[in-house]
Amino acid sequence: MPIAISTLVRPIILSGGSGTRLWPLSTPARPKQFLPLVGERSLLGETFARLSDPALFSAPTVICGAGHVEQVQVIAASLGLSSPRIVAEPCARNTAAAVALAALTATDPDELLLILPSDHHIERPDLFRATVAEALAAAEAGMIVTFGMKPTRAETGFGYIETGAVAIGTVRHVARFIEKPDAERATAMIDDGRFLWNGGMFFARASTLVEAFEQHSPDVIAAVRASIDDPAALLVTPGADRFAATPAIAFDHAVMEKHDRTGVIPSDFGWSDVGSWTATYERSVQDGGGNAVEPGSAVIDGSGNLLRSSGPRIITFGVDRLMILATNEVVLVAPLDDAQRVREAYERYRELTSDT
Amino acid sequence: MPIAISTLVRPIILSGGSGTRLWPLSTPARPKQFLPLVGERSLLGETFARLSDPALFSAPTVICGAGHVEQVQVIAASLGLSSPRIVAEPCARNTAAAVALAALTATDPDELLLILPSDHHIERPDLFRATVAEALAAAEAGMIVTFGMKPTRAETGFGYIETGAVAIGTVRHVARFIEKPDAERATAMIDDGRFLWNGGMFFARASTLVEAFEQHSPDVIAAVRASIDDPAALLVTPGADRFAATPAIAFDHAVMEKHDRTGVIPSDFGWSDVGSWTATYERSVQDGGGNAVEPGSAVIDGSGNLLRSSGPRIITFGVDRLMILATNEVVLVAPLDDAQRVREAYERYRELTSDT
Repeated sequence: MPIAISTLVRPIILSGGSGTRLWPLSTPARPKQFLPLVGERSLLGETFARLSDPALFSAPTVICGAGHVEQVQVIAASLGLSSPRIVAEPCARNTAAAVALAALTATDPDELLLILPSDHHIERPDLFRATVAEALAAAEAGMIVTFGMKPTRAETGFGYIETGAVAIGTVRHVARFIEKPDAERATAMIDDGRFLWNGGMFFARASTLVEAFEQHSPDVIAAVRASIDDPAALLVTPGADRFAATPAIAFDHAVMEKHDRTGVIPSDFGWSDVGSWTATYERSVQDGGGNAVEPGSAVIDGSGNLLRSSGPRIITFGVDRLMILATNEVVLVAPLDDAQRVREAYERYRELTSDT
Repeated sequence: MPIAISTLVRPIILSGGSGTRLWPLSTPARPKQFLPLVGERSLLGETFARLSDPALFSAPTVICGAGHVEQVQVIAASLGLSSPRIVAEPCARNTAAAVALAALTATDPDELLLILPSDHHIERPDLFRATVAEALAAAEAGMIVTFGMKPTRAETGFGYIETGAVAIGTVRHVARFIEKPDAERATAMIDDGRFLWNGGMFFARASTLVEAFEQHSPDVIAAVRASIDDPAALLVTPGADRFAATPAIAFDHAVMEKHDRTGVIPSDFGWSDVGSWTATYERSVQDGGGNAVEPGSAVIDGSGNLLRSSGPRIITFGVDRLMILATNEVVLVAPLDDAQRVREAYERYRELTSDT
């Protein structure tokens, strides 16, 4: 069913993350949104593709680190897209600053902005777009709408949203934002049924966001505004010193938790933050033995393994439930279910490389 | 105790092997003798060092594949040795042809040749040299002396030598050569006590070897002789077509098993053929957790692992008793105790690389 709406939505793609949870393939120079972790396309490429619906979306704007502009352009070009508008952050200042950049560089104060991460995977893009269309009326009416993912397990790595009364259409009021819970609390929320995962996406008019900032975090919006010389440029380059003066705070803390007119739309489009190698494995195509293997590598007589390489081929036999990750610089081998310890391995690697 | 003998021994280093048992670090282009598998030196470098005793040995001759001449020279130079005399085989024709090359290119028919592999590890080089000195009288007297290693386990991967009566000094007559046995036979031989491992080393005068060839395998020595244009050259290059006509047969089969005047000297100098990754692990320096790790790589919270790389660093955590082997082309991960399956992995790798 084609989506028909009166006003196009401007996607704002946040491409600032540079976590180490997917090291060694993800590095500060090439964070995970630039990697083909789940399918053949990079996560950013998947995001571009998901937003390529001219009946719903106008051309996206990408907010990324200054060092990543070229990678963003290359991925857009590889999809046959024209070069996107880019806001190049001179340094990382968390999501409040990024959302403020989005709001202040909008082409029109009434523009509907759909702000979303570049490094998440969405299994059912059609349903994602349908959910955006459903949330449109609430965003047009001046709410800041978040997307609440139907939880599938008692995850302690995500924030949760408690849903309140119906607001507009399927959008509900937000009763409360809950930070990453402990296991007991997470289980209780799953059992309760009113709690959804916070997917880190925001949908609102530019003017709604600016006003919410002015009300709850005027220092953030003032610092970001002061850093922008030409908010209409095709490549916006905030001044480094001025932008660095912006408080580094998450948009949830800076605005959402304090704001009245927040909404949440229950969503079930197969979202994953691809936040660990275990999550990557689960979302990947697997062979009959449950191995997630790229062409060029091979598992002989083993099951449940994840093999990923940007460098050498990988061959393995007789092992189960391992992650084997390779680049031209380093190979990491570990139990797939210990993905939370990858940071420890990264730290050791940094020690080793600083020795030489 | 310094060794004093009347005639110097000429070491002949056989550097023709190119097995796949130590793949992926060992490849046809860079067989295992060129790799630092056990210590910091390559096995060939270790061999050169072991033979650098001017009271016992004259300068060595190396018999290697034509494609490996430069690697041999580089390793000799890295030890501060002058470039060795080299016989460059245009193709591999097994050990009988190599021993015939050694005998026919000797500088004097009476020269004492100590023919030994380049890709073995010897734990106690002093004892090795003392054993050579002990065997000298038998070699001078016209015997072909082999070195019989005191067995430490019922190994099925080696040939065995049954010792006979005393011949000269500690050298005994060979009662019989036994091919690789099954497990039951191997255990029986260990229990018996008269059986030693065949280390593939031979010690004899050049003229003794030539005469033994004429008697038992005249076709081999005739073909090799016909292939050599200048037996006194510093770099001997047998004619390719003529050398290729030599029957490819092991020296044990061609001569030793048929010859009367063969001897064996019981040896206990810590010999290993480094014939598998398990053997490499056992001979390597290990940390407190039993991990054999090179500087630059690391095991966090794991034990009994072997890490070897000629390319990327290796970091691993939470795994035990694995071999993790890396080059710039390929990474192999497998249980350390399944080293005999490495060939299978190599075959799969060849399939994968021929696809692309």
